Amino acid sequence: MSLSPESPSPPHPRRRAALRALIADAGLDAMLITDLINIRYLTGFTGSNAALLLATSGDESSVFCTDFRYTGQAREEVPDLVTVIDRASDLALLSRTPGTRLGFESHVVSVARYAELAASLAGGTELTGQQGLVEGLRAVKDAGEVASLRAACEIADAALAGLIQAGAIRAGRTEREVALDLDERMRRLGSQDISFPTILAAGENSAIPHHQPGDRKLAAGDLVKIDFGAVVDGYHSDTTRTVVLGAPASWQVDLHELVARAQQAGRGAIHPGVALADVDDAARGVIVTAGFGERFGHGLGHGVGLQVHEAPWFPSVGAPSGGAGPNSRAGRMIADMTVTVEPGVYLPGRGGVRIEDSGVVGPDGYLPLTLAPRDLVVL
Amino acid sequence: MSLSPESPSPPHPRRRAALRALIADAGLDAMLITDLINIRYLTGFTGSNAALLLATSGDESSVFCTDFRYTGQAREEVPDLVTVIDRASDLALLSRTPGTRLGFESHVVSVARYAELAASLAGGTELTGQQGLVEGLRAVKDAGEVASLRAACEIADAALAGLIQAGAIRAGRTEREVALDLDERMRRLGSQDISFPTILAAGENSAIPHHQPGDRKLAAGDLVKIDFGAVVDGYHSDTTRTVVLGAPASWQVDLHELVARAQQAGRGAIHPGVALADVDDAARGVIVTAGFGERFGHGLGHGVGLQVHEAPWFPSVGAPSGGAGPNSRAGRMIADMTVTVEPGVYLPGRGGVRIEDSGVVGPDGYLPLTLAPRDLVVL
Repeated sequence: MSLSPESPSPPHPRRRAALRALIADAGLDAMLITDLINIRYLTGFTGSNAALLLATSGDESSVFCTDFRYTGQAREEVPDLVTVIDRASDLALLSRTPGTRLGFESHVVSVARYAELAASLAGGTELTGQQGLVEGLRAVKDAGEVASLRAACEIADAALAGLIQAGAIRAGRTEREVALDLDERMRRLGSQDISFPTILAAGENSAIPHHQPGDRKLAAGDLVKIDFGAVVDGYHSDTTRTVVLGAPASWQVDLHELVARAQQAGRGAIHPGVALADVDDAARGVIVTAGFGERFGHGLGHGVGLQVHEAPWFPSVGAPSGGAGPNSRAGRMIADMTVTVEPGVYLPGRGGVRIEDSGVVGPDGYLPLTLAPRDLVVL
Repeated sequence: MSLSPESPSPPHPRRRAALRALIADAGLDAMLITDLINIRYLTGFTGSNAALLLATSGDESSVFCTDFRYTGQAREEVPDLVTVIDRASDLALLSRTPGTRLGFESHVVSVARYAELAASLAGGTELTGQQGLVEGLRAVKDAGEVASLRAACEIADAALAGLIQAGAIRAGRTEREVALDLDERMRRLGSQDISFPTILAAGENSAIPHHQPGDRKLAAGDLVKIDFGAVVDGYHSDTTRTVVLGAPASWQVDLHELVARAQQAGRGAIHPGVALADVDDAARGVIVTAGFGERFGHGLGHGVGLQVHEAPWFPSVGAPSGGAGPNSRAGRMIADMTVTVEPGVYLPGRGGVRIEDSGVVGPDGYLPLTLAPRDLVVL
């Protein structure tokens, strides 16, 4: 790798240094990282089996471990750490920690695996659970991460625009057909994968927040809710748009307008330092005031990055254990966090509207990275 | 659902009854299931947040929990259990267990989440870790599961045949293009998703067991290794075939012939009651005898089903914690297990061959469900 003066510093050593500061603060000699996404963030490794022993004293004393299938890949992706090849990657690294205070990811390691690790500890090693250290670092993105997310969002925007321009969202096609069409467009535009199973919900199905596309045919008069994303360099975009087939009924116009106002209020409330709960209130208040609070039962949004759902978590989303742990800095917006804003109102049996962007918290407010039109598109 | 005398009994109550017998044996009053795949197996629920409290006394006392997004889906997919709507699904169910001996999935629940559960236990409830109970049941398939896996394998076979017939595996196309082509063919044939990121590795890249398709263009003389799968009703197929572009060199013919012999030996060794280690030996012995033992560094195969990698695990595969726990019955082949057989030999810098089938352990031996030709296909 050529490091001209203009090149940013390589991200992985920088991220390991940031984690090292946290584990030094926690009084640890080293930390065993076993979450594969966290390992990717810290090393660049993308395989399916790995562990990382990060020493507080420096990268020279740190060790990476993966198995035979990834020997060559580890050499390419993790050239800057000592690498051990062993199938039982976490156990293999434990033997290298005599007499240390060793941290582990207590929100990742299962109760059963913890017992196995504890039983094979090197003499004098003391295991201490730590929650969400790496997830907290991951919540605030560097420029390279934002660039990757932006590229994913651009693919998603282009795929949806192509789908609309091709007349592919039309009466007579099934939800499944249209969803597959969108997925193929994203892949052909360079998405490594789809970000999550595409939600494409027509008519009354649009009132189901997480509907799975099926054999229902799109028909005139349907609201069609489309929630989808692309992946670039491992970074996941997440967009929702709701369109209507044919001239919209007035309740559809009103519903879309309500959600659009709420979404705009949520975006407008985002600034560095603002509590996530206040952002949620800003958007939710619009819907509650209109009398539809009961029809917006999910959280306002979530972080996006190496996972499509990650820290920070808006307060009313069911955050998985550890995702909003004490060290995740999840309580307030911080510049360079990347989050979605996605209010929705769902009228059972009739239809629903959700509008969602992925974007970055800039110094002066929220900068959407998904730029598809937010008006009600009539097809 | 119409239950004519010919209809098989609905699978989910039957599976819950089987688990109930295991937890009664373990002296438990109830078990808290939190692994989403296990919940799908036991209830049919396919959403992304759920917990199940299975009472030893019967389904009447059992409770299912998911969140707002899945209210309607739970009603459709889990009509036969009392359902509670709560975001913190595991914690919500704990409050319903006063004075019980309660099992939990200790290979699933993290150390941190366990602490939260333990802190909110109803009075007198005692938590006991259990490993791999449901995974052990899942290892042996019922007829409906085999039918779903067979359908996935048929899609995979048809997609590969279509790819070959279309001349799509040809010099000048990149690995990525050919992999995407194959993925699209599977989806269009009805696969819900791809089973895992398709491995398509040309020339020297075929020597990398888990290569990620990239910008390398296929060229005359290349071995092309293709490892891919389809998904039907949540069941994952897994096939590998290795083809050659243009007249093969003698080392390529020899290498393919060696792996084909090993694969046939592995398939031939599978019978109910046989130790998995003996099946591995049968295939590995062929490769070791030929002097290439060091070039086959991974396990011979694994179970396939609701996950592409699940119990039973062949002995030298790095089984995730709990996957081959004490209750997984992983040590010997049992009729109606579904497993892959996938030896490979990899010559760094030159190329590699892997041949893999998914199939079912029948009363008289292994019945492959993937039927694509296993001869070296010359394109």
